[in-house]
Amino acid sequence: MPVNVLFAAHKSRWAQYEAPLRTALDDIGIDYALATECPPEDVDYIVYAPNSHVQDFTPYTRLKAVLNLWAGVEDAVGNPTLTVPYARMVDEEGLTQGMVEWVTGHTLRHHLGMDAHIVNPNHVWNADAPPVSADRPVGILGLGELGSACGQALRRLGFPVTGWARSPKSVDGIPCETGQDGLERVLRQSQILILLLPSTQATENTLNADTLAMLPKGAFIINPGRGPLIDDDALLAALDSGHIAHATLDVFRQEPLPKDHPYWSHPKVTVTPHIASETRPPSAARAIAENIRRGEAGEPFLYLVDRDAGY
Amino acid sequence: MPVNVLFAAHKSRWAQYEAPLRTALDDIGIDYALATECPPEDVDYIVYAPNSHVQDFTPYTRLKAVLNLWAGVEDAVGNPTLTVPYARMVDEEGLTQGMVEWVTGHTLRHHLGMDAHIVNPNHVWNADAPPVSADRPVGILGLGELGSACGQALRRLGFPVTGWARSPKSVDGIPCETGQDGLERVLRQSQILILLLPSTQATENTLNADTLAMLPKGAFIINPGRGPLIDDDALLAALDSGHIAHATLDVFRQEPLPKDHPYWSHPKVTVTPHIASETRPPSAARAIAENIRRGEAGEPFLYLVDRDAGY
Repeated sequence: MPVNVLFAAHKSRWAQYEAPLRTALDDIGIDYALATECPPEDVDYIVYAPNSHVQDFTPYTRLKAVLNLWAGVEDAVGNPTLTVPYARMVDEEGLTQGMVEWVTGHTLRHHLGMDAHIVNPNHVWNADAPPVSADRPVGILGLGELGSACGQALRRLGFPVTGWARSPKSVDGIPCETGQDGLERVLRQSQILILLLPSTQATENTLNADTLAMLPKGAFIINPGRGPLIDDDALLAALDSGHIAHATLDVFRQEPLPKDHPYWSHPKVTVTPHIASETRPPSAARAIAENIRRGEAGEPFLYLVDRDAGY
Repeated sequence: MPVNVLFAAHKSRWAQYEAPLRTALDDIGIDYALATECPPEDVDYIVYAPNSHVQDFTPYTRLKAVLNLWAGVEDAVGNPTLTVPYARMVDEEGLTQGMVEWVTGHTLRHHLGMDAHIVNPNHVWNADAPPVSADRPVGILGLGELGSACGQALRRLGFPVTGWARSPKSVDGIPCETGQDGLERVLRQSQILILLLPSTQATENTLNADTLAMLPKGAFIINPGRGPLIDDDALLAALDSGHIAHATLDVFRQEPLPKDHPYWSHPKVTVTPHIASETRPPSAARAIAENIRRGEAGEPFLYLVDRDAGY
């Protein structure tokens, strides 16, 4: 009997993923059947988007693992019927690389003051050069795979990078703070602040009126992490007061961002449509196939979710 | 008698440079006098901006070297009265680092399609992710200190980088073409093209109607090099036809760019005011002091201009 792989995600994803998944599964050399429908009791693996129709895992009695298509797992990690190993997507080539490019690009954009040149209706020629990156301290909240990779890329460009994480981390060349005192130290020195924490109860509203006030005047906020990390009203107030110069936001509490949300029209906010870290089908399919290979070979799965931590 | 150093540049530069130069000259431990005026026959070194009042070097009879404040030397290299060693500015910390930041930032800006998010009056949420950098070939024309440094930074971010230079170069990890055939090969594959050639008779209008047509449709042009590298009319035509998607230009045949120049109002052109590579006074002053130390110690000067090549 083949290894049955159920693809449980939106139909548009099937169009993107079917061919890359077949290629990747062919490459690992197992006998498999891949489909969008399969009797639950026959399913070995589910390739999974948390917004798919599969919400009750109880009928999947021989299920060996659930392999997330997305990096974010917060919509499924609390599902009491999901008891088998649950792996999040870590797609170095797509997710991590895309995040590094987006974060590096927007950090440089704010560092260089590009917006004043991109939109310059009065044709102002103001030849003041920005400081070099060595004089622009950057803080990163969250030093998982994505935060660490972004921090290293920014370090290689010369930015002094300081990180903060909820538990102590060691990342080559990036001093890492922890705890409330550490958070305050990072915020006080960060002219550009990047949010890459997971979304948990403990991280909700990490940026609020108190913590925003700790940032230097004129600081930039970049949030490619998760919408609930920010108290939106507090951020809007800090932008209006001039304390925060600009916020570039890729993630929101509701997505797509509602048409009437004040972020859309605020002159100091840039909205990007949750594109910072996007799985690219070829590399994501290889990551999924590798976990199926491991499952069939009795090897430990990669990137399992820590259910107690919630991510 | 002290070593007499004449500072020949605009007064605003003196305000920026006097203190850093004194610090740097103090640090090399010589007996010196630094001033904006000095009898020509007493001057040992000139710290020089090519647009300064000093255009006839004949009266400077004991001059040991002219030390340029700028990277560009084209306005002085043909001066027949300038016969002593002439060094251009190579300020790794300021010029090179600033260039790397500007080029990397604008490359990522075009790669990520940032402008559609920065200016998005209809609040369009279009979550198509850009390709990853590995799928965005970049070409760099000119592989001197600046072009090589930019190429390495882009390579580290995952872009496939190909270079072209007038004479064969070897740069770690960057294939380097030369000759007309090589230029065509680089252009045909460059979705983003960066111009970092020196300004000489041989490089004028490197980008013209013929060479622009060799670029893939939808290519981006980034010119932090020199204005005359581009045939402006040909570029405007290629933008209007849609063959070139956008041009980000930091340098122009006339600077500041005249208020009525079509680049200012063209929707597919971004003008930046010659800020890509700007000497930062502290590091530039250290580079100048190092050459004075070398001159006094009888050591060879760094970064001498090749008068035959013109740069």
